[in-house]
Amino acid sequence: MPDKFAELRHQLAVANRILAHEGIIDAFGHVSVRHPGNPARYFLSRSRSPELVEPGDIVEFDLNSEPIKPPPAQLYSERVIHGEIFKARPDVVAVCHHHAPAVMPFCISGDPIVPVFHLGAAMGAVAPFWDSRDEFGDTNLLVVKPAEGASLARALGKHTIVLMRRHGATVVGSSLRELVFRAIYSCDNARYLSQAKQLGNFSPLTPGEIEMAQAIYQLPGAQTRAWEYWETRLAKRGGMPARGRQTAAPRPALPGLRGKVRAPRPATTTAKKAVARKPVTAKGGKRK
Amino acid sequence: MPDKFAELRHQLAVANRILAHEGIIDAFGHVSVRHPGNPARYFLSRSRSPELVEPGDIVEFDLNSEPIKPPPAQLYSERVIHGEIFKARPDVVAVCHHHAPAVMPFCISGDPIVPVFHLGAAMGAVAPFWDSRDEFGDTNLLVVKPAEGASLARALGKHTIVLMRRHGATVVGSSLRELVFRAIYSCDNARYLSQAKQLGNFSPLTPGEIEMAQAIYQLPGAQTRAWEYWETRLAKRGGMPARGRQTAAPRPALPGLRGKVRAPRPATTTAKKAVARKPVTAKGGKRK
Amino acid sequence: MPDKFAELRHQLAVANRILAHEGIIDAFGHVSVRHPGNPARYFLSRSRSPELVEPGDIVEFDLNSEPIKPPPAQLYSERVIHGEIFKARPDVVAVCHHHAPAVMPFCISGDPIVPVFHLGAAMGAVAPFWDSRDEFGDTNLLVVKPAEGASLARALGKHTIVLMRRHGATVVGSSLRELVFRAIYSCDNARYLSQAKQLGNFSPLTPGEIEMAQAIYQLPGAQTRAWEYWETRLAKRGGMPARGRQTAAPRPALPGLRGKVRAPRPATTTAKKAVARKPVTAKGGKRK
Amino acid sequence: MPDKFAELRHQLAVANRILAHEGIIDAFGHVSVRHPGNPARYFLSRSRSPELVEPGDIVEFDLNSEPIKPPPAQLYSERVIHGEIFKARPDVVAVCHHHAPAVMPFCISGDPIVPVFHLGAAMGAVAPFWDSRDEFGDTNLLVVKPAEGASLARALGKHTIVLMRRHGATVVGSSLRELVFRAIYSCDNARYLSQAKQLGNFSPLTPGEIEMAQAIYQLPGAQTRAWEYWETRLAKRGGMPARGRQTAAPRPALPGLRGKVRAPRPATTTAKKAVARKPVTAKGGKRK
Repeated sequence: MPDKFAELRHQLAVANRILAHEGIIDAFGHVSVRHPGNPARYFLSRSRSPELVEPGDIVEFDLNSEPIKPPPAQLYSERVIHGEIFKARPDVVAVCHHHAPAVMPFCISGDPIVPVFHLGAAMGAVAPFWDSRDEFGDTNLLVVKPAEGASLARALGKHTIVLMRRHGATVVGSSLRELVFRAIYSCDNARYLSQAKQLGNFSPLTPGEIEMAQAIYQLPGAQTRAWEYWETRLAKRGGMPARGRQTAAPRPALPGLRGKVRAPRPATTTAKKAVARKPVTAKGGKRK
Repeated sequence: MPDKFAELRHQLAVANRILAHEGIIDAFGHVSVRHPGNPARYFLSRSRSPELVEPGDIVEFDLNSEPIKPPPAQLYSERVIHGEIFKARPDVVAVCHHHAPAVMPFCISGDPIVPVFHLGAAMGAVAPFWDSRDEFGDTNLLVVKPAEGASLARALGKHTIVLMRRHGATVVGSSLRELVFRAIYSCDNARYLSQAKQLGNFSPLTPGEIEMAQAIYQLPGAQTRAWEYWETRLAKRGGMPARGRQTAAPRPALPGLRGKVRAPRPATTTAKKAVARKPVTAKGGKRK
Repeated sequence: MPDKFAELRHQLAVANRILAHEGIIDAFGHVSVRHPGNPARYFLSRSRSPELVEPGDIVEFDLNSEPIKPPPAQLYSERVIHGEIFKARPDVVAVCHHHAPAVMPFCISGDPIVPVFHLGAAMGAVAPFWDSRDEFGDTNLLVVKPAEGASLARALGKHTIVLMRRHGATVVGSSLRELVFRAIYSCDNARYLSQAKQLGNFSPLTPGEIEMAQAIYQLPGAQTRAWEYWETRLAKRGGMPARGRQTAAPRPALPGLRGKVRAPRPATTTAKKAVARKPVTAKGGKRK
Repeated sequence: MPDKFAELRHQLAVANRILAHEGIIDAFGHVSVRHPGNPARYFLSRSRSPELVEPGDIVEFDLNSEPIKPPPAQLYSERVIHGEIFKARPDVVAVCHHHAPAVMPFCISGDPIVPVFHLGAAMGAVAPFWDSRDEFGDTNLLVVKPAEGASLARALGKHTIVLMRRHGATVVGSSLRELVFRAIYSCDNARYLSQAKQLGNFSPLTPGEIEMAQAIYQLPGAQTRAWEYWETRLAKRGGMPARGRQTAAPRPALPGLRGKVRAPRPATTTAKKAVARKPVTAKGGKRK
């Protein structure tokens, strides 16, 4: 049974790894993409650091962020961020939640981020601020309840990025590539803005400049050029997921994972290859 | 005689190397773990940069920081930091002393570090300050006497991190993984706080947020996810200690080490493997 | 038909890659060199991230920035920066347009960059500021029209670097090596200046110092020493373009490039080598 | 004719490369060591970026900074820094001149660097400031005349580091290892001091603390531990000079070097190995 989403899973794994490699996400953070054939579903990795995501780690969810099939492994506790935004924003195709070092000082100080250079316009004119305290009081600051996700989605509104007080940011895109482009250049923008403020003055782009410059990545070749660059950098460091391996064979479990990922049925030596190709989400008995 | 602490030694070597690879410790700094079967003992490397620590470098100490067996090599002069904290804090299982660039500006300026984002809550609400001058006047700033270690342990109190004026920090954990998590994210917290202060305002997490967010790494999978990430990053750069090599065969000594590490007895070729497995702490004559 | 510009194409590809490796250019930015035999022409890569440029990607342009042969692929939309500067400045042999993190805070704040250390004098005494709004009002901030390129060239005047408000910088040189040297050390200068301003006072070099220090890279061996260093660093990371491959064989197209790069005619096995050497700009029928 | 200084040449090449790898020196900067048997001589590489220095690049000089044998290649124009300091300071065994990013903001602003943490005490209590303008007026800021070197040596006085206004710093040591230790930790100290000043207050170490902490690297094992760390980091990145290759075979010349390094006499195939071992300083005719 070939996986018709093999290429999509691969692209999503690559997007995860590019954003990790470019310093936007670290051990935490996650990236999702909407189901191309069914807008009421989306794809997101099982709970795993983005730098390590393999195509076989990717799980299909409904917009209530429930996995379509019984999940074989731990899931991200904050997946409602993705589900609630996909619900509220039919135009959004991809979502990234991150705690990038570039935005954290703004998330902590509450200072606004505004676009200050042409590529920074990828963030749009405004980055609204969401403070979990306003609606939910003291929490552990994670966005884990549907109501919290819905509140964040309302704060995002029609914008492309929402800052989360004392936590991080969530960025959206109309495609995986636009999302990656926006996530990376909005972080560059935040960094340069922060340093420009140390020097003294600064003035943001005008509304007209923002509107026009926001479309730079829609120029012929611009997004492709950037994607080729990030993908090549990732590949040079040996960071690409295994190609063609739509479904990851369970790796030797790390000590902490023991007993959490269900091992595949014991296989005879000759059957090994076939078993290795079975999706990690497969449960021995069910797939027959 | 198999080493029943082989896995522990390996994990401790990995923790050392992860903290070096993530920029928390450099040529100096050290990481220890309490003996799982005997709370009056702990494990710590011989004097060696954490990035290079092999399982075979790890020495067993009592809580007075005396090695259980005659030490084969130079020991860390500051090991009383570990012994005195293990004495004073029965709940502590792992200790790291470091001079991370992220905390040094605070250690020098005396500015307090407070938790300002969800993962930063791993440090707890308060990072007490210990100034060696208060009790000991002018010293070389190292913590080498038992009384100095005990004073530092008192300053740490019930907290999870203590800042050491003009020196660095010491962090504790209820497990090696919690320690690594806390050391890394408390440094991120310090870095973001420092930058937020440049931007202007900031407000720390509330006591309620701190308490709840401090437990994020106890969520199912969070600590495991982070550890898998750090371990994979380390492994990609060729940084892992040799697996299964519980005891390091003495490496060709660097010039400066000559005469300090006792060479193993000459062995016939057939006996080579056995000799190679002997602990570095073994002294030819004694083990017979 | 051997390519008499093979060495020049190689050097230009190396210059692109050095500037990417040293952090001056990222996904965007571009580097050109004037035709050594015909001052009315210049060489510049097709639209591609500088880190990836191969000798075979390099296209020949006239000073109106029109390609001499029908271009086989997307071109940089901002190539008029190069053409208009080559027109206005007969002494200029090489041009680099970049958005280096070191200059962006100055481009955003409008603070002037002045030379503050001996190697920083490579930028000359003054870095004029060009603000696209002054002449063109709201744009997407890219320099894509000949009039915009000409305006920028006027702002550059007789200087060696021009800052572009909310965008980046453009640097020129009397050779590719001088250009690379100037681009790198003017960025170091900007970074140190920015940090010195945080500390308090600073005073720029005197006019006499600037004039004398500006010639440091013309000392015997200085430029060569620096180039050898940057080239070796690049090579160590596996970053060099393929030597001797004057013309890149079309790589397997990335999804976004599909249908844009024309594939070479199918070749018999024995003819393979010859075909591989054909320039990527060759169009099957035309070259016969 | 075996080279009795082979080990010293190797160590000096390693010191050069460690300091480059740790970010103290880049394309420029240089490191020397005094002749162990003849205090009126010293060793220093030919003009070459420190990261690339091979044992065979190292040339012997008298204290007037004249090469003992006719030099086969371009020499550092600033070698008088080394010669004049070796003249003025019989206790000094090793010298490094650098433009490290950590000290440049201080060299530009004129702000003093003082020791603010235990390892920073390696710099001593005071870093005197030398401004070339005071004695020599406008220059290109390089230290190339004996009088300039002597003036710098006077400014250094009995200290271990001298800051050079708008230029960089020069550090000395009583051994190569002490020099490397001091160069690296004085830069860490400058970086932390700069950041502590942004946070607000700071107070330097007391005179007593400085004196005691300055000796940390003389504790048993401390210097060895640090050297092993830096050397291992360098080796992991493939950065070590070729062992046993006391004398570098001339590499294929870079374009810019053509005609500057004299090629060895053509050799028959069987004589190749012997020729490769000939020092780069050998001149065909003379060695017979």
